[in-house]
Amino acid sequence: MENLHADLVRSVGGAAVLVEREDKAGYLTDWSGDWTGDAFAVVRPSSVAEVQACVKVCRRHGIGIVPQGGNSGLVGGGFPPSTVQNMVVVSLSRLNAIRRADTANATLDLDAGCTLQKAKDAADAIGLQFPLALGAQGSCQIGGNAATNAGGVNVLRFGMVRDLILGLEAVLPDGSLWSSMRGLRKDNRGYDMKQLFIGSEGTLGLITGLCLKLHPKPAKIETAYVGVGSIEDAMTISALARSELSELVTAFEIVGSECLPLARLIDEGLTLPVSSAFPFHVLIELSCGKRLDGRVLLEGFLADMMARGLIGDAAVAQSDRQARSFWAIREGLVEGQARRGYHVRSDVSVRLGDVPAFVAAARAFAARDWPDWTPQVYGHAGDGNIHFNLLPPLGMHRRDAREHGQRITKSLFAIVEDFKGSISAEHGIGRARIGAFWQGLGEVERRTMRAIKDSLDPHDMMNPGCLFPVLEEQK
Amino acid sequence: MENLHADLVRSVGGAAVLVEREDKAGYLTDWSGDWTGDAFAVVRPSSVAEVQACVKVCRRHGIGIVPQGGNSGLVGGGFPPSTVQNMVVVSLSRLNAIRRADTANATLDLDAGCTLQKAKDAADAIGLQFPLALGAQGSCQIGGNAATNAGGVNVLRFGMVRDLILGLEAVLPDGSLWSSMRGLRKDNRGYDMKQLFIGSEGTLGLITGLCLKLHPKPAKIETAYVGVGSIEDAMTISALARSELSELVTAFEIVGSECLPLARLIDEGLTLPVSSAFPFHVLIELSCGKRLDGRVLLEGFLADMMARGLIGDAAVAQSDRQARSFWAIREGLVEGQARRGYHVRSDVSVRLGDVPAFVAAARAFAARDWPDWTPQVYGHAGDGNIHFNLLPPLGMHRRDAREHGQRITKSLFAIVEDFKGSISAEHGIGRARIGAFWQGLGEVERRTMRAIKDSLDPHDMMNPGCLFPVLEEQK
Repeated sequence: MENLHADLVRSVGGAAVLVEREDKAGYLTDWSGDWTGDAFAVVRPSSVAEVQACVKVCRRHGIGIVPQGGNSGLVGGGFPPSTVQNMVVVSLSRLNAIRRADTANATLDLDAGCTLQKAKDAADAIGLQFPLALGAQGSCQIGGNAATNAGGVNVLRFGMVRDLILGLEAVLPDGSLWSSMRGLRKDNRGYDMKQLFIGSEGTLGLITGLCLKLHPKPAKIETAYVGVGSIEDAMTISALARSELSELVTAFEIVGSECLPLARLIDEGLTLPVSSAFPFHVLIELSCGKRLDGRVLLEGFLADMMARGLIGDAAVAQSDRQARSFWAIREGLVEGQARRGYHVRSDVSVRLGDVPAFVAAARAFAARDWPDWTPQVYGHAGDGNIHFNLLPPLGMHRRDAREHGQRITKSLFAIVEDFKGSISAEHGIGRARIGAFWQGLGEVERRTMRAIKDSLDPHDMMNPGCLFPVLEEQK
Repeated sequence: MENLHADLVRSVGGAAVLVEREDKAGYLTDWSGDWTGDAFAVVRPSSVAEVQACVKVCRRHGIGIVPQGGNSGLVGGGFPPSTVQNMVVVSLSRLNAIRRADTANATLDLDAGCTLQKAKDAADAIGLQFPLALGAQGSCQIGGNAATNAGGVNVLRFGMVRDLILGLEAVLPDGSLWSSMRGLRKDNRGYDMKQLFIGSEGTLGLITGLCLKLHPKPAKIETAYVGVGSIEDAMTISALARSELSELVTAFEIVGSECLPLARLIDEGLTLPVSSAFPFHVLIELSCGKRLDGRVLLEGFLADMMARGLIGDAAVAQSDRQARSFWAIREGLVEGQARRGYHVRSDVSVRLGDVPAFVAAARAFAARDWPDWTPQVYGHAGDGNIHFNLLPPLGMHRRDAREHGQRITKSLFAIVEDFKGSISAEHGIGRARIGAFWQGLGEVERRTMRAIKDSLDPHDMMNPGCLFPVLEEQK
């Protein structure tokens, strides 16, 4: 271990190798406080060459590497579990330069350790936008967004991170550098290897750079807050908006009215644009270029939906400030949840037509088997992505809540499987969902995933215990 | 070989195993007539189980498999070269059922052997659209489109085929079936393996089924034909249209005026909407939903571009018939080219800002080194994808033309490399581009591609000689 330390220091410099408990602490506890781990060292390289050097050292010593971005993941993928000792956390936070912002090509080349906000600001500075929008955008890193194929509220129009990446650069487990950073919109030369790194959660290599596809900055963004009588109506409106408004809708978020008290935890004086008596609220955002009148389009659409009885009440934001207040409800409920402490989080998806039946089934299960727990339904309904969460009874001890929570999650996943849905629509598998994930895979799917992993990381060096179960001998 | 024949017959039935020269002929010559090959047999399974059985037979006999769709590829990826004997062509044309058209989910599940036109018709029948648009759509198959990550004229708005696929099913080289056909818009469970099969040109497995993502059918499509003074102006207009018109532009095709005589070969009476004196013509298509007035948007945009001096003259189609006549120019030039017989075809891409400089460099090269050849410039300029082709002097013998053509292609690819572009934007590598492709790859990129191939197809059974060079021992 002394040699390992000395070699790491040689590769990145002494100040960038953290081995003292208090120095490492911030990298070894996750955002939610649900997970705490341990590692031999936290290393903070500041260049791609240093990342390569550090990976080579770990390779020589047979030590596992845990790549870490902004540490804002929700499934424990970015830090080492305490059950596996002696791993090295490689934090990308010092590798954070904007490399090239190209207006003509509408692309942005940057280091993986840039925060999402920094990427968005750099796009904005050249008159374009990088549309990925996440609650954690001030702290999460673009490399982590790529490694987890992040989603967020603008997927409906702009897709997942996968759809926003034109090029990628990664250090492979042997320390060599793989790169496809030409910034081409169309390139059919051989396997599109970058697709493998996207969503691989650090298990195939360490992403060091990205070329992002930028979009035109909208001239105007219009926001509406709507009350509907049922989730069925919400889904119908979503489909009609998509069609009649030419897929200009950038967000279509549903909020079950049971979530509203959570938003109130964050802002007591919260005023709702529509009555909380509506079982579902919907936040609709429409973005368009200067030749289109988004306000007229959105108001016309909403009026028609009201005339057809699909919408009970609606408010269109008259100012940016009002629009932000609509979003504060959606964002506040997530913060309010976190403030309640441990809760069952889920991130599932089903086919669009199955969303109402899935929500009904999940609610019926909760009411029947866990009547003391409070279900919360919200999410990106236009993509079929629902966060069906459950809050434990007030006053329940955290340990008991977690124990029950595991059973609740298991049952919830069984319902998802009944609908042939996904137990992870956007959060990934990490360390939290490994069991359910592998159990749900067929034999052929397991075998091919393993074959790909072995082909690029034959010594199981990259993020051991994430996505793939840890073999007993490795513990 | 007798055993192989008998085993194939047992797996798919005698009528589906073609071994006579005249029966096989149609499967062994490519669309352009540039390539002719040979195979032990052409097999035509009619179910996924038959495909699996047939792959298992080939595996047992150690025989290579060439998957074939509509045989409309442009790089010789879909049929066996005559240099490698004893391969089996598996034609998917009988595996052609629509499995499930789901309006609520906006998806279409279908067999890989469906033609693209059949897929488009099935989408249309449920009030939606599958936007992929290719010249060969009546004969090319959706499985081939996926295996080659096809592009076409609507990539600007809807992306490549990769962006239109939600699920995929493939028979692996050992005959087992890999599948991800749940039809989910968001699914972050493990590696997105389908991305590997897309664009793999049949070298990892045999695609048997797909789940396609459908889009709303546009209420109105507006088409303009425009004359511009330079390719620089065309690129400026493309960027402004993207921004001001909210990315509603579905096609932005440029045609160098030197291509117009080719279109005249197909239709002598062709009338041009704008003068052929403009060095570049641009075809702009805008599609939108019922609440938007595409005509007003497009006319307003064009008027502004004219006022700014970016457009010399423009015509907006007043009827579907007129719109088709605009497209007939773009499509006619491709047909006219084919009628001229052998010519140098290219399919390259560069960064958007480099398009004008690349075209200038390629033209300068042609004028200097091959003054008797006629260069043709056209393509999907909005994506940076240019088809820079050269017609041999009239009367040149085909053999001479091909010999010169190889040297021209080599020089052209060197220019593309100077611009750090791609020698295959949408056509793929197949057998025609293997040399240039591998030469252009770095050592790390070669090694990782090979590792992926070996992990799923360790016996090099799938489409030998396509994408990867044939090893001497295999010949």
